[in-house]
Amino acid sequence: MDLKDKIRSIEDYPAEGIIFRDITTLLKDAEAFREAVDQMAAKIDKDVDKILGIEARGFIFGSALSYKLGKGFVPVRKPGKLPHDKISEFYELEYGRDSIEIHEDAIEKGEKIVIVDDLLATGGTSEAAVKLVERLGGEVSSLVFLVELVDLNGRDKLKGIDVHTILKY
Amino acid sequence: MDLKDKIRSIEDYPAEGIIFRDITTLLKDAEAFREAVDQMAAKIDKDVDKILGIEARGFIFGSALSYKLGKGFVPVRKPGKLPHDKISEFYELEYGRDSIEIHEDAIEKGEKIVIVDDLLATGGTSEAAVKLVERLGGEVSSLVFLVELVDLNGRDKLKGIDVHTILKY
Repeated sequence: MDLKDKIRSIEDYPAEGIIFRDITTLLKDAEAFREAVDQMAAKIDKDVDKILGIEARGFIFGSALSYKLGKGFVPVRKPGKLPHDKISEFYELEYGRDSIEIHEDAIEKGEKIVIVDDLLATGGTSEAAVKLVERLGGEVSSLVFLVELVDLNGRDKLKGIDVHTILKY
Repeated sequence: MDLKDKIRSIEDYPAEGIIFRDITTLLKDAEAFREAVDQMAAKIDKDVDKILGIEARGFIFGSALSYKLGKGFVPVRKPGKLPHDKISEFYELEYGRDSIEIHEDAIEKGEKIVIVDDLLATGGTSEAAVKLVERLGGEVSSLVFLVELVDLNGRDKLKGIDVHTILKY
């Protein structure tokens, strides 16, 4: 199965000249979703301790991978969503900036963490997630994405860490 | 394993007098997360067509269930997140209202759908999700939640549909 056939490309969304890669057509296809998760799982070292998923689409792949691999799942969330003691990291947007948060007790010192999201674009969110893990004393084993937008050079922000992507555009 | 032991109760959050049931302590525990998903899966008919998860924590359980059961996954999202043709339903909040959206092509007519979320509280979001499925010609086979806050009577909004919850408070 070519998973790219299952992804819908939407032209001029969210702005003119941009092609949006819509994964909902892959998700709703049981075989394609399973294949995507299996291919992502194959990139993950068996000795990792936890899978971290970035809100919101990172939850979809991160939790399925946690279940499949028998690992705990850590949600990294948008501001104001986590109820207990937490730390946050900012990242730059085209206009302005945003932040993501993690519970302070989500990761133990020395744990090996895999960061999962659907899409590697500019890498800003992923870089912030790496900082959150490292501030808690965790070690980022790798980052795994379903889709990579190669022209946006997200890997430049993630040097020194293994980055795995399944579908490149 | 008593899954309730894995859930953190936070008093006076988000407001005084409210006890917030924090599932992140369960999620990060590999065995507890697996057990929670397995118990939810046991409530789902094998002949359903798709699993629908409500943003954002519904994605965590919905996608793991989709993977485990070999079903397609449909995300129901907050406004402005879905890139293609969609429909929306409003629901009431304590102050004001909010809405959720679904892609028009997410469900085929006659498909049997299971709606998944982490928490059944007042039932407003779940009721809106049921309406979205039915407007697209789908049939809600059941709703499955990890946690039910029994005093909030969410089941009253979901009469006539099978509602399954694992942990009752």
